[in-house]
Parts: sequence; structure tokens; C-alpha cells
Amino acid sequence: MPRYAFRIEYDGGPFAGWQRQADQPSVQGAVEAALSRLEPGAHTIAAAGRTDAGVHATAQVAHADLAKDWDPFRLSEALNFHLKPAPVAISACARVADDFHARFSALERRYLFRLVARRAPVVHDRGLVWQVQNPLDVAAMRAGAAHLLGRHDFTTFRSSLCQAASPVKTLDEIRIEEIDYPSGREIRFHLRARSFLHNQVRSIVGTLERVGAGSWAPDQVRTALEARDRAACGPVCPPQGLYLNGVSYPEEPFG
Amino acid sequence: MPRYAFRIEYDGGPFAGWQRQADQPSVQGAVEAALSRLEPGAHTIAAAGRTDAGVHATAQVAHADLAKDWDPFRLSEALNFHLKPAPVAISACARVADDFHARFSALERRYLFRLVARRAPVVHDRGLVWQVQNPLDVAAMRAGAAHLLGRHDFTTFRSSLCQAASPVKTLDEIRIEEIDYPSGREIRFHLRARSFLHNQVRSIVGTLERVGAGSWAPDQVRTALEARDRAACGPVCPPQGLYLNGVSYPEEPFG
Repeated sequence: MPRYAFRIEYDGGPFAGWQRQADQPSVQGAVEAALSRLEPGAHTIAAAGRTDAGVHATAQVAHADLAKDWDPFRLSEALNFHLKPAPVAISACARVADDFHARFSALERRYLFRLVARRAPVVHDRGLVWQVQNPLDVAAMRAGAAHLLGRHDFTTFRSSLCQAASPVKTLDEIRIEEIDYPSGREIRFHLRARSFLHNQVRSIVGTLERVGAGSWAPDQVRTALEARDRAACGPVCPPQGLYLNGVSYPEEPFG
Repeated sequence: MPRYAFRIEYDGGPFAGWQRQADQPSVQGAVEAALSRLEPGAHTIAAAGRTDAGVHATAQVAHADLAKDWDPFRLSEALNFHLKPAPVAISACARVADDFHARFSALERRYLFRLVARRAPVVHDRGLVWQVQNPLDVAAMRAGAAHLLGRHDFTTFRSSLCQAASPVKTLDEIRIEEIDYPSGREIRFHLRARSFLHNQVRSIVGTLERVGAGSWAPDQVRTALEARDRAACGPVCPPQGLYLNGVSYPEEPFG
């Protein structure tokens, strides 16, 4: 059976997360249902990152095996037709080798977190950012974030439900970008690692927000990390600012 | 009665336009209703631009007279509280002179139009951009747009319902910005003029899209302009990509 890789964009708002669930809408369920419209029967699609309820993707990657030899462009067009009106779109599709695995072949995942600091409620970005009403000190947040770069035991920044074998991960990048608008400021966190622990990005951003607000000193991030204790973490921030926005493989599947 | 100026952001989607209507939701109606919660009775708010149904604003400007001497920050906070859950927010508020008029004092209006060219349906920007599925030649669009710069009789690019006394307007800027994403391209049109005719921006963008798609030669834009005939215009594009995103006054009211 030929294997296909898909680059998938979705609004996490209406979904209980990526993973298929018996009684709730999921992104995986929506894509598998669309595949069933093309080739009757059950389908299983495996993704690079199993995003939580409410988390978005601009470039999730997943793969599935199909019976027919599809032209990749026609396959993506047909899937997009059957996905309507769900806020899920296949933005690229490619035939890949039988040993390509969206999850296990991935070398790197990239996440973006969008945080908006302003008083007036956000309008156009409602559901697409996390809004706080207090001003944030970006220099302090950058100083706090610097303690997290590199290889560490991230037990503090890991959900108690996390199933990863080890809490040790290497954070290759945590870059904080500032965008000023006439009526507020958007802060974008760009994180890059081979893989992440469950709730790691939201635990980190929630903690750094406390640093930006002035209730944590930047050095407390190091203290919290070194505690290796979930209780030492700041508040986990909400999902609607988080985007899986890139996955890298030894060979780029979409050319 | 003290006069206040407001900078207003809104998602045009759920509204029949800026202007108050007896039987349909309008942005003006929403803001006036919020004002009535603060000071009982009828209120009238006048805006710099009476945007059409579905058109957005990031920085509409309007003014109203109130009985009480409000602190501008508290006034904006109270209005935002009463505007919820409508997608309308007061992003700035200032006390202004009695002769300030949001519409008649305005020296310049700026509009942004967001056009996305890609095959896959847009997900996060649904309702916030106009999507076309054909690729667009931006160089051709720029060549076409250049004919519109400056002072012209814009009869061709004016709705037959337009109530302006004269079809002669001066377009001070029409800049076309290109943003490439992995899965498509966004084209942003930035237009700037003292004032615009009814449907002028959407008539221009709809025509330039035809140039980008290759069905019009760039020079045909000049021919259409010189015809001074509404029938010579290209198709008027839909409202959801259009944003009123700035208004200038002799003195910036929001400091």
C-alpha cells in the first residue's frame, strides 16, 4: 500500500485535540473520516505531534497508507473537499517511502505561542492568541527563558499525565519576538526541539508570563527547573495561543 | 457636553455595516447601546468611515458627546465591558475639542485589503481574508495599480449607490505587499487617500486581482479608469478582506 504524508493546518478550537476519541470531535477523526470518503473502510493516520484540546497547527505532519495510487495533488484536493466545513485543511501532500513515519522519523518540532498583552479585548484574533491585560517586560522574559535552553530534566515543566519515558529533553531554541501595535503588544515565543514533553510549551510560557508580569524574578526560572518538581512550575497557560508550526525530517517530504 | 474620540476595532462579519439600522445589527448600534448603559438615553456616534456589511476595522475613529466628565481610560474600560460579547473593542479613548469631528476633521483614511492566493481553504484567517485559488502575478498587479495613483475621476471604481458629490479623488498611495508562506501567498494592498468613494477599494482590488490572474493586461486598468464608466470596472471583491486601519487628523487625538 502506498504511503502518503500530509501537511495539515487546523483551528484547534472546536476539537478535543488531535487524537481520535470515541465521543468527541478530534482532528485525527476528521481527517480519517475524509479518507473513508475516498477509500471506504477504516483508516489510521499517525501524526508528528498529538496536540491537546484547543491547540492549533499551521504545519502538523501525518501519514497514512492508502490502497490506490493517488496523485498527491488530487488527493489533497479531494480531502479538502470532504473536510469542509471543518476548520482543517491539507496544505501539502506527498508520496513517501514505506519506512517514513510522521512521528518516529521526525528530527525536530517547532512550536509558536502567541501572547497578546493589552487592555481592550482582542477582536480579530479571538481564539487565536492568549490575552493578558497586564504589561509584560520582554527583557525579563528573555533572561528567564535563557535558563531553559539546552539539555535539562524538564520534570517541572511536564504534565503529571506525561507518558514520555524520560523527562530529559534538549531545547534547541527559545526565541521571544516582540510586535508592537498602536493598541498593545504581541509576544511570540518560538520553541524548537527534537521532541517536547506533554504541556511543556504551555508550562514554559505560563511561567515566563509570570516573569514578564514581574511576579517572578528571571532567576526563579532556573530555581524552578532545578527543583525537578511539577509543583515548582508557574501556571500552565491556556491552549489557544499555541501552534505546532513545523516538523523536520531527514528528507523534506513536501519538496 | 464634553466630546470624546474613540478608536474602534471590529470584526465586520456579524454586522450589516457601521451604520445604525432599524432591524439589523450594526457596529454603530452596538457602540451606542453600550453608551446608553453608561448614560441612559439615546446617543449618536459619528465615524470617520461608514464601512459596509462585512468590512472590518482595526482603527475606525468615532466621536460622541457625553453628559459626564469621564476619565477616558475608565470610559473605554466601561464601554468594553458593555460591548461584550460583540466583536467590537474600544482600543483608545480621548477627550477632544468641541469642534473635533471624526468624519469632517479627518485628513486621511488608510485601508488594508488582505487577499490570499492558495488552493487549500484558509483555516485561521477564515472570514478575515479574501481567498482566491489561482496564482497571482504581483508585478503585473503593481503595474496595473500604478495607473490609479494620483488625482482622477474614479467613476469606474465607484458604486452606483455612491453619494459623494464628486467622483474625483486623489489616491495618495496604493502599495502592494507580498507575504509568502510555505503553502500559499498573501497579498496586502495598502491604500491611502483623503477620502474614498463607496466601494472604491473593493472595486480596485477586484480589478487588480483580474490583472494578477492574467485575464486583464495591466494597461487595461488605465483604459477602464479613462472610460469613467462603472461598466468598465472589474468584479467588485467581497468585503471580508477589507480593513479600515487608520485615520489621520490635524492633531492626533490619542496622543
